[in-house]
Amino acid sequence: MNYQAYKQTEITGGFLAGKQNLNRKITINAVWNRFSDTGRIKAFSFDWKEGMDRKPHIFWDSDVAKWMEGAAYIIGKNGDKKLEEKVEGLIDLIEKHQQPDGYFNIYYTVCEPGNRFTDRNCHELYCAGHLMEAAVAYYDATGKDRFLKCMMKYADLIEKVFVKEKSAKFITPGHEEIELALLRMYRATGEKRYLELAKFFIEERGMHPEERIPAVQDYPVRRQKEVTGHSVRAMYLYTAVAALAKETDDEELKSRCRDIFEDVAHRKMYITGGIGSTRMYEGFTAKYDLPNRMAYAETCAAISLVFFCRNMLDIEKNSEYADVLERALYNGALVGLSSDGKAFFYENPLELNIRKLNRLIDSSRKPIQAISQRKEVFDCSCCPPNLNRFLEETESFLYDVEEKNVYVHLFAESTLQNGDIFVETKTEYPNSGTVHFSCRGAEKLFVRIPGWCKQFKISAPYTMDSGYAVIENPVEITVELEMKPKLIGTNLNLQNNIGRAALCCGPLVYCTEGVDNGENLHALYVGRDLDATISYAPEFDANVIETNGFRRTQADDALYAEYAESFEPVKLKFIPYACFANRGETDMLVYMHVK
Amino acid sequence: MNYQAYKQTEITGGFLAGKQNLNRKITINAVWNRFSDTGRIKAFSFDWKEGMDRKPHIFWDSDVAKWMEGAAYIIGKNGDKKLEEKVEGLIDLIEKHQQPDGYFNIYYTVCEPGNRFTDRNCHELYCAGHLMEAAVAYYDATGKDRFLKCMMKYADLIEKVFVKEKSAKFITPGHEEIELALLRMYRATGEKRYLELAKFFIEERGMHPEERIPAVQDYPVRRQKEVTGHSVRAMYLYTAVAALAKETDDEELKSRCRDIFEDVAHRKMYITGGIGSTRMYEGFTAKYDLPNRMAYAETCAAISLVFFCRNMLDIEKNSEYADVLERALYNGALVGLSSDGKAFFYENPLELNIRKLNRLIDSSRKPIQAISQRKEVFDCSCCPPNLNRFLEETESFLYDVEEKNVYVHLFAESTLQNGDIFVETKTEYPNSGTVHFSCRGAEKLFVRIPGWCKQFKISAPYTMDSGYAVIENPVEITVELEMKPKLIGTNLNLQNNIGRAALCCGPLVYCTEGVDNGENLHALYVGRDLDATISYAPEFDANVIETNGFRRTQADDALYAEYAESFEPVKLKFIPYACFANRGETDMLVYMHVK
Repeated sequence: MNYQAYKQTEITGGFLAGKQNLNRKITINAVWNRFSDTGRIKAFSFDWKEGMDRKPHIFWDSDVAKWMEGAAYIIGKNGDKKLEEKVEGLIDLIEKHQQPDGYFNIYYTVCEPGNRFTDRNCHELYCAGHLMEAAVAYYDATGKDRFLKCMMKYADLIEKVFVKEKSAKFITPGHEEIELALLRMYRATGEKRYLELAKFFIEERGMHPEERIPAVQDYPVRRQKEVTGHSVRAMYLYTAVAALAKETDDEELKSRCRDIFEDVAHRKMYITGGIGSTRMYEGFTAKYDLPNRMAYAETCAAISLVFFCRNMLDIEKNSEYADVLERALYNGALVGLSSDGKAFFYENPLELNIRKLNRLIDSSRKPIQAISQRKEVFDCSCCPPNLNRFLEETESFLYDVEEKNVYVHLFAESTLQNGDIFVETKTEYPNSGTVHFSCRGAEKLFVRIPGWCKQFKISAPYTMDSGYAVIENPVEITVELEMKPKLIGTNLNLQNNIGRAALCCGPLVYCTEGVDNGENLHALYVGRDLDATISYAPEFDANVIETNGFRRTQADDALYAEYAESFEPVKLKFIPYACFANRGETDMLVYMHVK
Repeated sequence: MNYQAYKQTEITGGFLAGKQNLNRKITINAVWNRFSDTGRIKAFSFDWKEGMDRKPHIFWDSDVAKWMEGAAYIIGKNGDKKLEEKVEGLIDLIEKHQQPDGYFNIYYTVCEPGNRFTDRNCHELYCAGHLMEAAVAYYDATGKDRFLKCMMKYADLIEKVFVKEKSAKFITPGHEEIELALLRMYRATGEKRYLELAKFFIEERGMHPEERIPAVQDYPVRRQKEVTGHSVRAMYLYTAVAALAKETDDEELKSRCRDIFEDVAHRKMYITGGIGSTRMYEGFTAKYDLPNRMAYAETCAAISLVFFCRNMLDIEKNSEYADVLERALYNGALVGLSSDGKAFFYENPLELNIRKLNRLIDSSRKPIQAISQRKEVFDCSCCPPNLNRFLEETESFLYDVEEKNVYVHLFAESTLQNGDIFVETKTEYPNSGTVHFSCRGAEKLFVRIPGWCKQFKISAPYTMDSGYAVIENPVEITVELEMKPKLIGTNLNLQNNIGRAALCCGPLVYCTEGVDNGENLHALYVGRDLDATISYAPEFDANVIETNGFRRTQADDALYAEYAESFEPVKLKFIPYACFANRGETDMLVYMHVK
């Protein structure tokens, strides 16, 4: 989280404001209610006993902490008293049940007392990190430091146990998160020991062969040029590494972050910005191994990629980081939330085949395919509260100010106020490519020209720098980004997509649904010479697209027959990928055949 | 096994004779050696004790029994003394260690004494069935009835425990096999109680809700019109059901067999005759769910489909049963054996992508994809000895004689002698479509016109009946089946194959391999207007095919870019699918893009 960027920005309307309003009115309360139903809130009373149901899970602290962080942002921006009461109530319990030495963890206090810091894979430091992030956010939002002080005390205990005494049974956490949280603690408090502790966990990773789990990014960060293992863990780690590299101006770490970014963005990322293609360990596999129907692409992973990209922009202004950030935000992350704001996807495949669901099960009889409709809560319910906080952090992705230069990374109806510098942005983006900036006090305006945009006009002279159009002494500036539907093909190494393309328009990836296009979406072909009609759909607050197309037909029901080609012309309707599965259970497909 | 068909036929040369010679010279001994190495042979000494390694597995009896059955056929045809000594040695041990009441099972005698017939899923009756099949085969081959008597005694015990006393802890076996074995026992001995016992196990299946395992064909046979569950179990069951229907002339059971055949052949069978598309329970999934790379298509399943089709031909002469039998034999079953005769595939995918291997693992870290090279033995090594016996049973698939009518189901260099009826077949099939029959004593010759053949010539007048050309008073008959390479497309519900086709020639399905065609076989397009050159390849004893084609090219390494089409012309080389993976580790693909 870049606090400067966050504090200087206000989103005033448009598409992203709509998502934030939904979060504030519906989603933040929906998650609270489900967390109450499932015992997650009650668990903070520390009164679970053996034999009772709703036994606290090792990651429940983190679920609620992410919700608290989201609530803190809302309180900071909107002053929501009811939310504040809930957060204060939780802080009361945290303060009450924190151990005298600073330790705080529900599971290891009520379920397994005596076993603290013995199991690397039990998410203790992960929970600690999320609590720290929530504490920093709440301190920033309200100025109240009670929660922050609890977490400083806990961080100090962690430093003692892991660095000074080395009395823990492991050296680095199995699930990264505390690293980036400690860097936020450092930035919030100025206490350098938190920077050092973050550095310790980052530098020690992978240095201890006994601590290597195949499915985790368990390699020495300074020697690692490829991304592996669990996708959220890897991205949380590199979010922290980028922040550490920035704070310490460490060129080696910056290079490694660039390597990792390149490996993700050029070889291991879905067109939606989804990452982590296998459910087996929720992680990255081989390069170009990006199956569509069996995609995992966890909502949290797209969010974590956004965080990493944001921190890369802190290191250097290069439009490619913002391109990937935007891709993951508008597609892979937002698809996680239903249009009514109450339900969530954990996994986000690029193809859904209703008929094939529920038939693929693993040896323990669990489905091995994504669900077809969003759910209100999961057993492992990390994604819903992650969306609560993520949606409130979008302000931090829009602008940067460096000296008198203003960088515009993303386009949204918003204002920027930084000292004497003021920018007001007017736009219907992503539903239009026209963006108007009214500027005061800026010497240069750096406007990102998105990778998806091949033609653009700017109402003033400009030069180009690292993917940004640079306008000197800007006042009233209009940028027109040509935003027309395009067929995007994939690298030939994505073998399932050969001969197919995804329809994209601006930052949005589109898909077809059965409810609009009938059965067997794979039999549909989009015309190579697109004849597209765009229209605004209020139900999605976004454009839908109609194109010419064809449906392949067959002579009879034979399973195998001499190859033949016959087609009938059809109209195809595409909706934004992030909006699929909001109109009942139906098939969905991103990559369409091209004819 | 149709003994009349088997005994009246001799395969005298050509492609199938080559496979049998390989089995007799190499494979039968290779499997014996690996079964010796792994303790399977030694287990018959019943001297394993707790703490020793190579603990007998619950299915080891069946592995060795299948090998014995294969050896018995070879002994019967070739009088192999060394093989006979090995089989006699095993029979000595079986006789010695059979319990006084007739019980015989290694695992439940040495590892879990006292627990016999308590666990439906522990393959006791499955092992018993395979031992019975071996005993019948050895009796038929040698006239020696020692083994058969042991197994009759065991069958009588099973009747007592399961039917008379009902003292077993289950009613029907978890893995079918004993049903078809008892019907063979009935045919060999004339003892009707074995028919009744087979009928009992068939009729009771699915009638007891407590015995329903989702992954098993656990439904009442008389009410079941769709095939589900474990593919080998289902096909062994319906092989028995078809035999029972034939023996008892039960029209309802015949209808159910037709339903099951249609569901398999029209909706759930790979083009190779492979069946059972998921590794999760080695079984059938939804109709048209036939993934290529993740295909399971166990070798034993293709073999079991052949057995089922053969028994359907016993019920009624319809060329479609022989079409599917031939498809499964020449492709899905034979692919299980390496060209050197020593190594085996268990799973038979229709696509192999070396780069993607070893990255897809399940939650217990086991690969969830087929291996790329055949292995000499498996922990679960059912397929190798199943090939030992299956290859020796091919005689039984070629002809039927009914009164003075001769049916030719498959084409192979062979003779048929049945009373006064004699047919000699000369052909280079499947490497040529020309087949010559010299006939004596037949009133009608029914020659199957394969489903793959659209043009044919016969040197005498004929009529058509159920897919067979009927020639009256045949003497010297030449049939010319047009056998040219064709592109075979699939039903549009096989969505991965839309826009693709498999090259087929006669009964053989072809594939491309990386070793011939370079990297990324998915980027290759076969020309829609085939320009094919056929040439005989001695290494495969089969034809290989070269065609015109194209390779899709890309401008750069971008992961996502505006959709474009560019191609370069290439020559494509296809080899029979059954011959893939004999020239080192390389990619393989059946369904090619068509341009």
